[in-house]
Amino acid sequence: MDHFQYKKGGLHAEDVPLARIAAEVGTPVYVYSTATLCRHYQIFDEALSGTDHLTCFAVKANSNLSVLASLARLGCGADVVSGGELARALAAGIPARRIVFSGVGKLPQEMDAALDAGIHQFNVESEPELEALSALASAKGMKAPVSLRINPDIDAKTHAKISTGRAENKFGIAWSRAHEAYAHAQSLPGIAIVGIDVHIGSQLTELGPFRAAFDRVAELVASLRAAGHGIERIDLGGGLGIPYQPDQPAPPLPSAYGAMVKEVASDLGCQIITEPGRLIAGNAGVLLTQVIYVKDGEDRRFVILDAAMNDLLRPAMYDAYHGIAPLIEPGPDAGRMTADFVGPVCETGDRFAKDRQTTTLAAGDLVVLRSAGAYGAVMASSYNTRPLVPEVLVHGADYAIIRPRIDVAALLAQDQLAPWLA
Amino acid sequence: MDHFQYKKGGLHAEDVPLARIAAEVGTPVYVYSTATLCRHYQIFDEALSGTDHLTCFAVKANSNLSVLASLARLGCGADVVSGGELARALAAGIPARRIVFSGVGKLPQEMDAALDAGIHQFNVESEPELEALSALASAKGMKAPVSLRINPDIDAKTHAKISTGRAENKFGIAWSRAHEAYAHAQSLPGIAIVGIDVHIGSQLTELGPFRAAFDRVAELVASLRAAGHGIERIDLGGGLGIPYQPDQPAPPLPSAYGAMVKEVASDLGCQIITEPGRLIAGNAGVLLTQVIYVKDGEDRRFVILDAAMNDLLRPAMYDAYHGIAPLIEPGPDAGRMTADFVGPVCETGDRFAKDRQTTTLAAGDLVVLRSAGAYGAVMASSYNTRPLVPEVLVHGADYAIIRPRIDVAALLAQDQLAPWLA
Repeated sequence: MDHFQYKKGGLHAEDVPLARIAAEVGTPVYVYSTATLCRHYQIFDEALSGTDHLTCFAVKANSNLSVLASLARLGCGADVVSGGELARALAAGIPARRIVFSGVGKLPQEMDAALDAGIHQFNVESEPELEALSALASAKGMKAPVSLRINPDIDAKTHAKISTGRAENKFGIAWSRAHEAYAHAQSLPGIAIVGIDVHIGSQLTELGPFRAAFDRVAELVASLRAAGHGIERIDLGGGLGIPYQPDQPAPPLPSAYGAMVKEVASDLGCQIITEPGRLIAGNAGVLLTQVIYVKDGEDRRFVILDAAMNDLLRPAMYDAYHGIAPLIEPGPDAGRMTADFVGPVCETGDRFAKDRQTTTLAAGDLVVLRSAGAYGAVMASSYNTRPLVPEVLVHGADYAIIRPRIDVAALLAQDQLAPWLA
Repeated sequence: MDHFQYKKGGLHAEDVPLARIAAEVGTPVYVYSTATLCRHYQIFDEALSGTDHLTCFAVKANSNLSVLASLARLGCGADVVSGGELARALAAGIPARRIVFSGVGKLPQEMDAALDAGIHQFNVESEPELEALSALASAKGMKAPVSLRINPDIDAKTHAKISTGRAENKFGIAWSRAHEAYAHAQSLPGIAIVGIDVHIGSQLTELGPFRAAFDRVAELVASLRAAGHGIERIDLGGGLGIPYQPDQPAPPLPSAYGAMVKEVASDLGCQIITEPGRLIAGNAGVLLTQVIYVKDGEDRRFVILDAAMNDLLRPAMYDAYHGIAPLIEPGPDAGRMTADFVGPVCETGDRFAKDRQTTTLAAGDLVVLRSAGAYGAVMASSYNTRPLVPEVLVHGADYAIIRPRIDVAALLAQDQLAPWLA
């Protein structure tokens, strides 16, 4: 459930009419609902209640400081994948002891910053990274708290670009090398083994692949302990899917996921770390946009929006589905039409929906692309020299601009004329 | 031919060692060669010599002000697709009389700016746009110079996301409606018909689809003239491909393209407008990056670079091929290896090359991704809160930073805390 509902005939974010935001901020614009963000965090966190657990929001899904600060107030931790995301989490008030650092390409300066901050753990993805981290920590007279990310070779049955747990993926350490890698970690002066990490992909819609991966991890915890390693934490990653499409079966609820996790992990005596991102932010945001033209092509109708693939990349990149809803609530007699929804960018891939049935729309109408709170604004660019899309956060009857539109003048000001051209 | 060559054992951009740019600017960084940009423009422009023609660089391919200013000095025009790109072209010194404005979603304020600037022509993509433009021009007491973009329904035989000339695409006006649309244009008070426009896609590697489209356009010019329309210009769009992959047949040379265009169009007595983008900028740039780790997975080796999909989206988005070359020239006895080249972003799609054979590489080595001058920096984002990649322009033995790295502090400064979170 989210807080984007029709009230008095108009689509609202909580108690704010989206038409008001369009008028005051302009379009396209991302709009997030604080109540939805917080509700999703709480439902997920409560699904693991009764266990020693830490819910770390995957900052890559939505890294706006106000979004992170809203979650920080509820006690949420952070899963970061770069020095930049670490800086965001800290700036938003998430304490270092609730931050885990994942990613296959950690740079020395990023690991240094994380060591200095005193983060909860590093999820280390390779043995070369382990050695680099040990050297950096040793030089500071520290031991870096490490979970090794082990690749369980499980097919997550999700989009190939976001499936991460196969042997052929770049992530983690091969299952067959786990014991060797832990022995290696044990031998390094700057490393303190604290646990094990796994993450098999994003937008999973079945519990089966999670269960298969977590069962393997539980076995590994036992055998690593038997080999003398102190495994006190298991980081199960993120990846639980969200409903994007109303006519598709809904993914498992967080409660079912939590029950399964408890069943697999509760006897291990480990702290359970999870890294939900999309689950918390995905349906807590919409992309609010205006129809520029309705164009009848030879064999189809096109609704041309003022949002484009540079603002929301998911449809062009992952063939992702986003619901589309008009701001004016359709009455029982409203006309219907079928159209492709496209943006102004000069690529055929700049299409949000194909053959979509909606209420009849005309130039000037406002619509939202739903489920745009995760992997939306964070992936936006200014391709075609389009201003960088702004973000708005709603809180009850209030809203605030939490990233203003970066306009054309500001984009041009980033460039510098070479001296020989001046 | 480009100006990225080994000299004295090290890869150079013109006379500047790329290792020097890496040391002084850091990595990842885009590096462009002025000599290559200018050479490509001149070869293309000369292929149409002897005709009345205007070569308009497709600004969407590379919109850096210094790149545009370099081309402007040679007399190059601009094909723009947004108000932002119009502002860039003008700021770079490209006169309005050499600017054409394309795109399916032109906004009123963008058309206004183009009318005020006095651009060469609008390539109008739909009848609703025609009416909107007429109303805006009339209100100023002007007539907007218009070519209608007609969709020839030709399969460009290129990647589906960048094929634009099929009836099912969002671009242009249906072939079957061309006469009606011209009659409509003729009836509007703010429109002056000046020509016809066609663009069938990007990165075409055969002349056949161009020839088929241009033949159709030539027929249409005759029948439109017979109907009393003043067709003085034909805009043939862009789309001629470039060599990305050494083992693939090279696309036709500009000279062959130019000869074909002359054959089709020279009897029409029209000004010939073209919109090359990739052809000019593609092989005039590289993405210079450093190896962070070399990681041996269970069944493959991964070279993890400090560049990622957010810096260069083409491989993740279009399965695009980019050549990879080490900065240190491999000697005759240099070892070889096969590896996947990936970035640090937490998606499996963040991969630049699969099973690529290269010289043996180790952490710390510098490499370039070739052919990154078009659709590279313009599509970059700061996904995963990675600093926005900088751009450098080389000119002989000089280089200049033409867009500095937008660092983490600057990214965080774009965000604002909502008042209730402060």
